[in-house]
Amino acid sequence: MERVKVEIITIGDEILIGQIVDTNSAWMATHLNQEGFELAQITSVHDKKEHIIESLNLALTRADIVLFTGGIGPTNDDITKQTLTEYFNTKLVFEPSVIENIDKLFENRPGFVRNELTQAQAMVPESCILIQNLVGTAPVTWFEKEGKVIVSMPGVPYEMKYVMTTEIIPRLKEHFKTPVLLYKTVQVYGFGESALAIKIADWENALPDFISLAYLPNYGVVKLRLSGLMENMLELEFLMIQQIEKLKHILGSTIIAYEDISIEKLIGDMLKAKGLVVGTAESCTGGFLAHQLTSIPGSSEYFKGSVIAYSNDIKIGLLNVSIDDLEQHGAVSQQVVEQMAKGVRRLLKTDVAIATSGIAGPTGGTDEKPVGTVWISVCSAENCISKEFRFGALREQNIIRSSQAALLLLKEII
Amino acid sequence: MERVKVEIITIGDEILIGQIVDTNSAWMATHLNQEGFELAQITSVHDKKEHIIESLNLALTRADIVLFTGGIGPTNDDITKQTLTEYFNTKLVFEPSVIENIDKLFENRPGFVRNELTQAQAMVPESCILIQNLVGTAPVTWFEKEGKVIVSMPGVPYEMKYVMTTEIIPRLKEHFKTPVLLYKTVQVYGFGESALAIKIADWENALPDFISLAYLPNYGVVKLRLSGLMENMLELEFLMIQQIEKLKHILGSTIIAYEDISIEKLIGDMLKAKGLVVGTAESCTGGFLAHQLTSIPGSSEYFKGSVIAYSNDIKIGLLNVSIDDLEQHGAVSQQVVEQMAKGVRRLLKTDVAIATSGIAGPTGGTDEKPVGTVWISVCSAENCISKEFRFGALREQNIIRSSQAALLLLKEII
Repeated sequence: MERVKVEIITIGDEILIGQIVDTNSAWMATHLNQEGFELAQITSVHDKKEHIIESLNLALTRADIVLFTGGIGPTNDDITKQTLTEYFNTKLVFEPSVIENIDKLFENRPGFVRNELTQAQAMVPESCILIQNLVGTAPVTWFEKEGKVIVSMPGVPYEMKYVMTTEIIPRLKEHFKTPVLLYKTVQVYGFGESALAIKIADWENALPDFISLAYLPNYGVVKLRLSGLMENMLELEFLMIQQIEKLKHILGSTIIAYEDISIEKLIGDMLKAKGLVVGTAESCTGGFLAHQLTSIPGSSEYFKGSVIAYSNDIKIGLLNVSIDDLEQHGAVSQQVVEQMAKGVRRLLKTDVAIATSGIAGPTGGTDEKPVGTVWISVCSAENCISKEFRFGALREQNIIRSSQAALLLLKEII
Repeated sequence: MERVKVEIITIGDEILIGQIVDTNSAWMATHLNQEGFELAQITSVHDKKEHIIESLNLALTRADIVLFTGGIGPTNDDITKQTLTEYFNTKLVFEPSVIENIDKLFENRPGFVRNELTQAQAMVPESCILIQNLVGTAPVTWFEKEGKVIVSMPGVPYEMKYVMTTEIIPRLKEHFKTPVLLYKTVQVYGFGESALAIKIADWENALPDFISLAYLPNYGVVKLRLSGLMENMLELEFLMIQQIEKLKHILGSTIIAYEDISIEKLIGDMLKAKGLVVGTAESCTGGFLAHQLTSIPGSSEYFKGSVIAYSNDIKIGLLNVSIDDLEQHGAVSQQVVEQMAKGVRRLLKTDVAIATSGIAGPTGGTDEKPVGTVWISVCSAENCISKEFRFGALREQNIIRSSQAALLLLKEII
């Protein structure tokens, strides 16, 4: 069964020189896949006319839809609009509705005044279908050619998300028809990727043709992603659930989730369901654990607060950690991390508490406790579970992995 | 002047279905650019033989070097090695040094045992130059064809970074010669992109040919990136500094930095230079501000800790916010945010303190205080600066923008 194929081309030197990370393409890919489209390729090219045209021509050999992001800002380095105008043998014409949109937009932004550069946004290719961008100054242009669709939209992430959600995806769905594609994700904890692959090899080899499997390892958790493609939605769903039931028999409690949700969302849902409130005491994670928990909308229902105790003064003064233990065992120890968890639970009056203390690096390691050594403790009214981890040498990784491990440890106690 | 051209091809369905964000390419692009290479294109393709070969053939028409990441894991969905073996008309042979490397690696990972899948990593293309991957099980393969270099490396970010830094970049530099390329970044605060472009139009138009300019807007700050290409390093540096001096006369104190560093690093350096210690009291940022500050190595020198006061209980009990003010003005108000900043400064005994309180969304907004309304206060012993912001409707954006605005406000007081 053939799906409608899409290619994304991001335009702009900033990605190619590494100054920004292309998060737009991942967002677009997720949403397009959810709507049944298939991504054929993602390409990042320079703000150069010849390169943009070459990539467009190649994309049109593989895909039914080409989505450009970026390169339509008001400044000189942006040339997408000029390039597409030339490519489609048309010319730029003045479109007053763009000016009206900009004026409306600037009403709510004190200090922003329309100038000649924003004004130039109103010059649009004559042969395109114009789509207003209600959250930015650069409009979206939609071209059609031999049954294929080419769209150019802003690269500013929130503008792109807004126009994709409200205009482009609905219009593409109307323009093309898409078959049924289903994804199911099973998240497994406690296996390396290859150990898991061996454990489920018989099951994997017996999967029917219309279901494919991918392994996505992510900080201690492996996501198994099943994708199924069929004409009948209900039948496909039934057959995929059947396969997951079989997997359940093999993997048992090492399966921590049957959907593609983040650990922080999973934990949040569990806390909410049990009516528990959590707080954190963070040393090495420095607020990242609290941030992960509060990144979920509605987290105020189960997250009360945190003490980031980067300095020992705060561990002692606010969390009631014993000076003797700090001196005898060091801040990165079972004794201290448990006292931190107990201390913050008492201080913030929460049902459960998590504490982290470790050496994030790059400096501060010793032979006995190298960079990446992290103690994590979770406590309820009844008991504490504490565990030592040895991550790696990279600070950023250590912060993320500690936070992830802390959430997984919390799961054991609630 | 021609630079040696590189293309990056990332292999794997997970990027194309949007399950992961491609941060590898940005990292590689940054480091390759720093070494004088030029990125011609970044491409993401599926784990499909024909697609990989097509993209390799096209990349070789544009670039001197093609770097593949991903698709070399131990599981069935990974096919890069097989594809390249076929492409280069060679065969897989057993390479015992790979096994030795894996055994050494697993010594330090309790619970990891070499199995038939990890063992299969030792089958490598006969005609390639093999480069051991000291931090993972999949080795790096390096091929040469008509003066061009094709390298396949792991997609796991820390493995990729390790092999790029220690092996691939040094070898590429030895293999090719690269001209002098310099980047200079000037960060400007307080202008929209187009207002800034108008302000500096005369200067921009007078830039010499060998210097090009890009505008990179980022949460209230616009980065101006100058790139220069010349034979003589010292002359280029001198001429670029001359241009930046001219810019200084035009923009004055709206320039907040003359290098491409993050605001959190900039603030950290300022705090360190002045011997000041900071703490935060966070409501809507939920720990993200503390995380930004502590993401910088060595931040314990100037960051002491935080209180994440998500619930009003904590604002009252720990930060000494007045119940009357909370009731009368609400948690998102100048009165409350200032008391939070003062309270945390006193509690944690820091020189300066930042507090945030806002409605991150998606719910909780009112007509008077819509989602995106945020109060930020920074206090020293002498005074407080407080400011109201109106960001947007998106939770994630509101958290990041609040945190960024808080750091910029702190800059005004220190």
